[in-house]
Amino acid sequence: MSAAVLIGLDWGTSGARAYRIDAGGTIIDTRESASGLQNLGQRTFEAAFDELLGDWRELPLPRIAAGMIGSRNGWLEVPYVEAPATITALAGGIRATPGGELAIVPGVITRDEGGTPDVMRGEETELYGALDDITADALLVMPGTHSKWVLARSGRIVDFETYMTGEMYAVMLQHSILGRFNQSDGELGEAAFLRGVEHGLRAGAIAHDFFAARTLVLSGELAPADVADFLSGLLIGREVRDGRQWARDRGDTLSQVGVAGADALSGRFVRALVHAGITARHIPRAAARGLFRIAQAANLI
Amino acid sequence: MSAAVLIGLDWGTSGARAYRIDAGGTIIDTRESASGLQNLGQRTFEAAFDELLGDWRELPLPRIAAGMIGSRNGWLEVPYVEAPATITALAGGIRATPGGELAIVPGVITRDEGGTPDVMRGEETELYGALDDITADALLVMPGTHSKWVLARSGRIVDFETYMTGEMYAVMLQHSILGRFNQSDGELGEAAFLRGVEHGLRAGAIAHDFFAARTLVLSGELAPADVADFLSGLLIGREVRDGRQWARDRGDTLSQVGVAGADALSGRFVRALVHAGITARHIPRAAARGLFRIAQAANLI
Repeated sequence: MSAAVLIGLDWGTSGARAYRIDAGGTIIDTRESASGLQNLGQRTFEAAFDELLGDWRELPLPRIAAGMIGSRNGWLEVPYVEAPATITALAGGIRATPGGELAIVPGVITRDEGGTPDVMRGEETELYGALDDITADALLVMPGTHSKWVLARSGRIVDFETYMTGEMYAVMLQHSILGRFNQSDGELGEAAFLRGVEHGLRAGAIAHDFFAARTLVLSGELAPADVADFLSGLLIGREVRDGRQWARDRGDTLSQVGVAGADALSGRFVRALVHAGITARHIPRAAARGLFRIAQAANLI
Repeated sequence: MSAAVLIGLDWGTSGARAYRIDAGGTIIDTRESASGLQNLGQRTFEAAFDELLGDWRELPLPRIAAGMIGSRNGWLEVPYVEAPATITALAGGIRATPGGELAIVPGVITRDEGGTPDVMRGEETELYGALDDITADALLVMPGTHSKWVLARSGRIVDFETYMTGEMYAVMLQHSILGRFNQSDGELGEAAFLRGVEHGLRAGAIAHDFFAARTLVLSGELAPADVADFLSGLLIGREVRDGRQWARDRGDTLSQVGVAGADALSGRFVRALVHAGITARHIPRAAARGLFRIAQAANLI
């Protein structure tokens, strides 16, 4: 068994993971806890950190973290690096916690034409982990509560855009009138999902499309069991439409599209992209490998 | 005092109103109850009706109702009339409750190019009440939980489109991450609202704009007290952008735009429309006058 050279942490809002990583960037073993930022309660970050690491705390290894742990509500607010951002710039923006427990990777900030900021924390690290070759050109879609579309060029995070797709889905399904019709069994209804994707890919107002979902049920043209999948398709389809336009406006040809995220959700995005005529492949998210590469760039290992 | 010739009811999801109306179509007096469809509990429609009318129940007058009372979950499901719909078609679609207590006005259904249905119940009546001249050409914006944009031509409801703007606002502000930042005092912050309108009028993804609201707060560029007004402006601005395109696609020149709704919300829509370069005037909603006109067309009075 190879020896660990690094402890990497992926520490976000809902949970935290620690990896022991070897000299090849491969995970040796993983520890997990529910101690995300929103679950800390009265505990300090130090306490949650000790609990997560356990006896790894004694290992004489560098430790590096990415994610919301570096945000204003985290252990230490690490200033954003401005896009276009290189891995070297990320490495240069690393800050250590006051007690030296942990080096924290910065997030990235970009601004649109109107000057409105957009931000990421954690995805920059996952992106550098997900790419086979970190200097490759890619358009990476990172689905989730707050999906990101990220344009990478020759090793730089050139620009990105966030869509609150996952949160809109959850909130509208749970709290709007659409929830009243929802009788989903939790299985993916492929036909209803693709029907939603088709709606979403069309021009139109999402506020109108939501109402259409309700009306289709009332008119008997959409089964209550299909509401959740239709809505999922509608929102993902709309994200694909909007993200595609965003990427094209930035000169991307959509020839290298990767979807980096959890299996089930990424599968939905790949389906929606293919439905829009875009070839896309699923790439596992790879926070540990990203942490390893950034630690290398920072000469921590 | 003039004599009543009609009892008109505006009976919706959250409440019910009854009007005694004279031969000139003017309201003599009004009775109100909270007995909307969602508040009936175990009571029958008959019981709620008796309670609302009280001693008006004994008056030998025709009675006519509009709103969700004619829906599937109402007292009697009255089939939709298809757009384009004339007031004569609405009058012809009236159905009486089994006991003859009440004549109920039908709603209107339309379908978009893709065949997806859109529906209204109550707004058709308010529209015929709101127009000075029911044969006038108009584009009527009817703001609310489910806003409607309605195109009227020579006395016909030609087409309409619903936007779930009000519900999206409420649900996202209460249940999404945006709610965490909201510290509104309830007063309209004009500057924040118009800033939201400007965002909304721009092309872009609403799922991205929601996230931008969060990011602007985090970067100190939007005060927590302004989040609700910014979000309101964003959603109303987007509705104006989408509705404007919808109307233009149907050949409307946006020269006769009326906003028919409650004062405060209509004021916001008028502001947003003017900000988009569209002259708009506020028209009070007039269910009673609409009921009177439809009752005339049906020879009930």
